[in-house]
Amino acid sequence: MNVIEKPKKESWGELSQRPTLDEKDLTNVISEIFENVNLKGDSALFEYALKFDGVDLVSLIPTQEEVNQARGLVSEELKQAIDIAKNNIEKFHASQASKVVKVSTTDGVECWQKSVGIDKVGIYIPGGTAPLFSTILMLAIPAKLAGCKEIVLCTPPSKEGKINEVMLYVADLLGIDKIFKIGGAQAVAAMTLGTESVPQVYKIFGPGNQYVTAAKQYSLNLGVAIDMPAGPSELLVVCDANANPAFVASDLLSQAEHGIDSQVICLSDSENSLYEVIREVQSQVEQLSRKDIAKEALKASRFISLENRDEIVEFSNLYAPEHLIINTVDEDYYIENISNAGSVFLGQYTPESAGDYASGTNHTLPTNGFAKQYSGVNLDAFVKKITFQRITKEGIQNIGPAIESMAEAEELQAHKNAVTLRLKSLS
Amino acid sequence: MNVIEKPKKESWGELSQRPTLDEKDLTNVISEIFENVNLKGDSALFEYALKFDGVDLVSLIPTQEEVNQARGLVSEELKQAIDIAKNNIEKFHASQASKVVKVSTTDGVECWQKSVGIDKVGIYIPGGTAPLFSTILMLAIPAKLAGCKEIVLCTPPSKEGKINEVMLYVADLLGIDKIFKIGGAQAVAAMTLGTESVPQVYKIFGPGNQYVTAAKQYSLNLGVAIDMPAGPSELLVVCDANANPAFVASDLLSQAEHGIDSQVICLSDSENSLYEVIREVQSQVEQLSRKDIAKEALKASRFISLENRDEIVEFSNLYAPEHLIINTVDEDYYIENISNAGSVFLGQYTPESAGDYASGTNHTLPTNGFAKQYSGVNLDAFVKKITFQRITKEGIQNIGPAIESMAEAEELQAHKNAVTLRLKSLS
Repeated sequence: MNVIEKPKKESWGELSQRPTLDEKDLTNVISEIFENVNLKGDSALFEYALKFDGVDLVSLIPTQEEVNQARGLVSEELKQAIDIAKNNIEKFHASQASKVVKVSTTDGVECWQKSVGIDKVGIYIPGGTAPLFSTILMLAIPAKLAGCKEIVLCTPPSKEGKINEVMLYVADLLGIDKIFKIGGAQAVAAMTLGTESVPQVYKIFGPGNQYVTAAKQYSLNLGVAIDMPAGPSELLVVCDANANPAFVASDLLSQAEHGIDSQVICLSDSENSLYEVIREVQSQVEQLSRKDIAKEALKASRFISLENRDEIVEFSNLYAPEHLIINTVDEDYYIENISNAGSVFLGQYTPESAGDYASGTNHTLPTNGFAKQYSGVNLDAFVKKITFQRITKEGIQNIGPAIESMAEAEELQAHKNAVTLRLKSLS
Repeated sequence: MNVIEKPKKESWGELSQRPTLDEKDLTNVISEIFENVNLKGDSALFEYALKFDGVDLVSLIPTQEEVNQARGLVSEELKQAIDIAKNNIEKFHASQASKVVKVSTTDGVECWQKSVGIDKVGIYIPGGTAPLFSTILMLAIPAKLAGCKEIVLCTPPSKEGKINEVMLYVADLLGIDKIFKIGGAQAVAAMTLGTESVPQVYKIFGPGNQYVTAAKQYSLNLGVAIDMPAGPSELLVVCDANANPAFVASDLLSQAEHGIDSQVICLSDSENSLYEVIREVQSQVEQLSRKDIAKEALKASRFISLENRDEIVEFSNLYAPEHLIINTVDEDYYIENISNAGSVFLGQYTPESAGDYASGTNHTLPTNGFAKQYSGVNLDAFVKKITFQRITKEGIQNIGPAIESMAEAEELQAHKNAVTLRLKSLS
């Protein structure tokens, strides 16, 4: 844990840097996987399941019996929790729907924009020990609300050839009808190229390891859209002397436990608070089952004191955190002035984990400073907006001469002619 | 011009294909330019101006005198036309602003989304004989409306070291205060990396040749966002027996004159109409100054008759055209059922050139089938949406147990603990 007291502005650039990741060039590995999936389709996927997941699958698709079993294995308590999360996520994402607004830009000229769900989307959910069923909620709920017609979900099978029961339960609950036992880069390749079983999709969402990330980047070059560029998860907490240091510490640790490359930053105008938080972190971390991960992540953490809230907001906007907790008395100042952040958590009783699971906001957010130009996943991520325009005889008479004049100046005579012909027919 | 009468569905996939472009791998050229701009900054830009634009520039920035001169050189008629276009584009893009909607997802849990302009954006406008000032309107107006703080515009200088007067006039009119005489890939490199004169930006917009396209793709890998993937311009016209064939032909030609790789498709349920349109195209094309380009583009054009409007809309959605003109009596059917298109033009008096210049809609649109998953440029393209959440004591008591339960199931104990601590403090 690094404490930096009142750093000069010249050093802010460096203090807001993410550590450079040691990224291997995986292009060759990935292009081989894509080629293989393209050539051999499903049979390549069975081979990869054997090679990477250690299982000789009977089918890529879970049976109805597996789905029924999963439903039986999830506790009632967890089912209720999932229902609460589902309702909140639905409510918030439904509120993001944009109404069609017809605008008469000139008499006789009407323009509007209509959101239409992307027909086919793919969701990738990593495997591993912890089943990330919450990410299924975060991606499939807005996809359903947006009206995406085909939602494909891929996740790696266990050594027993199963999908984790909570994940399978949630996918089934949300009505995802194309679930596949496919992991890693080969899942991304299958959704990009299509196989006998796996439908080709137009946009791929979801987290993953460096292979999945590289595969998504590869897909992008093949014309498939992706949710956003990937990077390690991050949290910046702003606290003042009024913040409960135990709460702040628990928030920092909930970020640190994600992975050894998790980024943790704490800003305050009170050095005292920073030291109190650090003491709390040191004591709480010992209680965690993932304390080794958290401790490793904390080594790169930064506790920075700054002069005042103006400096704090300036530093935070420079860093552009994925998650930003504002645990101060003057929330409104921050709401007004934050310009770069993925998701913002306001007040003493708003931990990051609320947004990770159940407040209703999305947890798929821009990392690595990408909050400067990317939004987190929201309803918009699952639609494209089509513009429409309808021009009447009066309308073309009103704007026709302007079009003719501009087309002529751009030396596009046929553009002009399309208007001239119409104007002549009306004169 | 290829006429295909009632093709079988098996052939639709092929008929909706874009021709494969003969794309050279420009990675080496582009990475050298980026390296050079990174190392030598402005002086690399002066060198490239000499090498590629044939001019030994005194400054990268137009002087106030040049701006004043430009204002004097633009005719009053063109200025008025630009004003009409500007007003319409402003009106329509302003209507796309999303209001903040605060949603109480559960008692005590409030979530909302706020649009914030991307701080720094770059606009690239190609040079060449025809000055694309309309694209400055299309990109700078929404950037201004979105509240982008810094708007950087790059465009190549002429051999005389000047920026075309209409372009300079429009840029000045819109209040763009960072205008640079930089062309091609080096402009994209400068905006990506920053130099002594050129500010680094977070997102780059605008059209360009294969070098510019490759440079934008290269920037994407360096963490800069771009508007959308590029491809040749396209138009699909749907016409019925009521459509005026001369109008339809003029629209097809206004697409064909763009470039020899422009895509032109015409669909109808009436073969008669198709042949009438073709006769009109053949006669009108001879009058055009750019007839050689148009004729070349028309060689690959397709005139396809289909059984009925259901088939027409199905084919059109499969093709996913950048521009779609619906010149039929049953517009509403199409409005309802079009799911993949960039911008749609409805009715007899709505030529594509209206949207290119002055109706108010944007003309920077997804090509190459990308309308399946990308929107055209709109206000959203210049903002990111930040989510906020505020949870009260009551709120965390309401959703806290659900978060605890889900965090435990995902084996993220610190996530759970951040809630448990808060709940305990309240009990």
